[in-house]
Amino acid sequence: MQTGELFDQHFRRNVMSVAICRSLQTTALAICLSLLMLAPVTSQGFAQEDMLPSWNETSTKAAILQFIAKITKQGGPDFVPQEDRIATFDMDGTLTPEHPIPLALVPLLADIKDNVAKNPLLGARPAVAALLKGDLKAVSAQGEEGVADIIAAVTDGKTTEEVAANISAMLDERVSEKFGVPYSKTTYKPMRELVDLLSAQGFTVYICSGSPVLFTREISQEMFGIPPEQVMGSWLDTKLEERNGKTVLVYTGKIGHFNDKEGKPVTINLGIGKRPIFVGGNEGGRGDIAMMRWSKDRNGPSFQLLINHDDDAREFAYSEPDNYSLDAAKSYGFQVVSMKSDWKVVVGK
Amino acid sequence: MQTGELFDQHFRRNVMSVAICRSLQTTALAICLSLLMLAPVTSQGFAQEDMLPSWNETSTKAAILQFIAKITKQGGPDFVPQEDRIATFDMDGTLTPEHPIPLALVPLLADIKDNVAKNPLLGARPAVAALLKGDLKAVSAQGEEGVADIIAAVTDGKTTEEVAANISAMLDERVSEKFGVPYSKTTYKPMRELVDLLSAQGFTVYICSGSPVLFTREISQEMFGIPPEQVMGSWLDTKLEERNGKTVLVYTGKIGHFNDKEGKPVTINLGIGKRPIFVGGNEGGRGDIAMMRWSKDRNGPSFQLLINHDDDAREFAYSEPDNYSLDAAKSYGFQVVSMKSDWKVVVGK
Repeated sequence: MQTGELFDQHFRRNVMSVAICRSLQTTALAICLSLLMLAPVTSQGFAQEDMLPSWNETSTKAAILQFIAKITKQGGPDFVPQEDRIATFDMDGTLTPEHPIPLALVPLLADIKDNVAKNPLLGARPAVAALLKGDLKAVSAQGEEGVADIIAAVTDGKTTEEVAANISAMLDERVSEKFGVPYSKTTYKPMRELVDLLSAQGFTVYICSGSPVLFTREISQEMFGIPPEQVMGSWLDTKLEERNGKTVLVYTGKIGHFNDKEGKPVTINLGIGKRPIFVGGNEGGRGDIAMMRWSKDRNGPSFQLLINHDDDAREFAYSEPDNYSLDAAKSYGFQVVSMKSDWKVVVGK
Repeated sequence: MQTGELFDQHFRRNVMSVAICRSLQTTALAICLSLLMLAPVTSQGFAQEDMLPSWNETSTKAAILQFIAKITKQGGPDFVPQEDRIATFDMDGTLTPEHPIPLALVPLLADIKDNVAKNPLLGARPAVAALLKGDLKAVSAQGEEGVADIIAAVTDGKTTEEVAANISAMLDERVSEKFGVPYSKTTYKPMRELVDLLSAQGFTVYICSGSPVLFTREISQEMFGIPPEQVMGSWLDTKLEERNGKTVLVYTGKIGHFNDKEGKPVTINLGIGKRPIFVGGNEGGRGDIAMMRWSKDRNGPSFQLLINHDDDAREFAYSEPDNYSLDAAKSYGFQVVSMKSDWKVVVGK
């Protein structure tokens, strides 16, 4: 056999193998896609798989499902293409409890004394002083800005990698007195189901929180099913330095942006460049109304969900003295969630 | 037939249909996945589909392909999971030409006179004054910060939606003298192929540019195959206001962050929270060395690509007087791309 023939045979065999593989792949993809496309049809035609089992069968749940159905209906008047299915959720009080203290403070409770011993100036900040005294009410009164301030103080001079190192492990270790589980398990189960449902329906789901991103990113995937690059929040300034011959980003102790109230639309626009069509927030701190209004004022359909903390038995009951957020919900047509009557379960994964 | 029996039959039929569908879906998915998994094996074993046809067969191309092969090799010592396959690319001079003017200035050329007539203070800014005189060399000398400054001046008081409205259409209209095609077609073809190859290999590819995000987001998908939420850049401050009863974000005329040099790692950390494993940049403005070093200093494998503008015939030849970026490439082991010898084609989609 000539070398040319050998080459020809080799060439034909290889090209044919590839061609067969390609064709098998195409066929399989076609089968796969058509069967996957059956799913919504069969589930609508026959049994409905309940993606929100921890929600009671109230008008709230119905409103959520109706909205998702209408904006995902191909050819329907309210259809929204996948690239515009942006959802943003506040974290503290919306995806996990914010009382007695916001989640971001949990890893700090043990270290705060050490940190102040090393850097006595820290103790002068009102939120830090309150935390040192164990006066969690006073810490809460400082709001999420107090939290960001404490974290800015504690991270000053550390590298981004040093700060990130133990956050997730510490939330696994420390147990919430109220719920009797580690803090890493204190996700609101109904909200986790909602995040999963939206993701399954082609939404990109972001967190937009007052807590600093450096904290929230370390726990977002495990607790809420939201990957770290889909986390927005307050941020602390960093600076590129060289340590031991390597470049590192070092926290400067300053807050770059405090992500609350009118600051939330600014951050969302910076991070994504689009108005969200689905927003989740909570009453209690007035923090989420601006991003809800900005979502409502988009061109096209949108949905805003405001959690009312009205369940003293299973969680905490609290509200704003002037009823600001609940009044806004009425004025602008946001859907209010009563934790007490809309949720079967509160905490659990 | 009893009502109970009817219900039973109905129930059985529906549940069985769903079960059959489920099982078909699972089977199809399994077939589909296993055939899809064949693809890399067959392409390695037999014919190689060339994903970088506009690159010459030089050591540069080989180095890129070797890096991708090693970090995607399941079970290999350098395997990097998908969630850490982060790539960041500079835009001007890296994905598209930055001479004679950076892309972001193209939509402004016609409007700048109108804008200055309305707001004479604008004319006092050096970059704006140079642009008004048509002195593009002087504009270039102001660097990307000059560009951000011009854009801050021109957008002052406008809403985010007003500013975004016509950018993409204007780049479709205006024709580049040098390349004889509309600016929206001035993508470096070899780099577009590289972005597509990385995306196909499980990378999330971001732009990290000195140009303001408000501009780059409007063209990133069409010109570079990168969706708007994967665009980072300089940003201008905005403020939430109410106009005609609706909330809007309004530019304040101030630069919030200038995303160049040491500012780039800061932005990447803010937007993603991870060091990139693949970085593309260019010599000519010293802008990309900091993000390349920050990538190189990560724990684990990484790759940095520095484009040398050495092709006066097909593009432009220019360099830094002190050779800063090319020297850095030598010191830190970045891969230098010679536009002249590594690229078959320069501009084209």
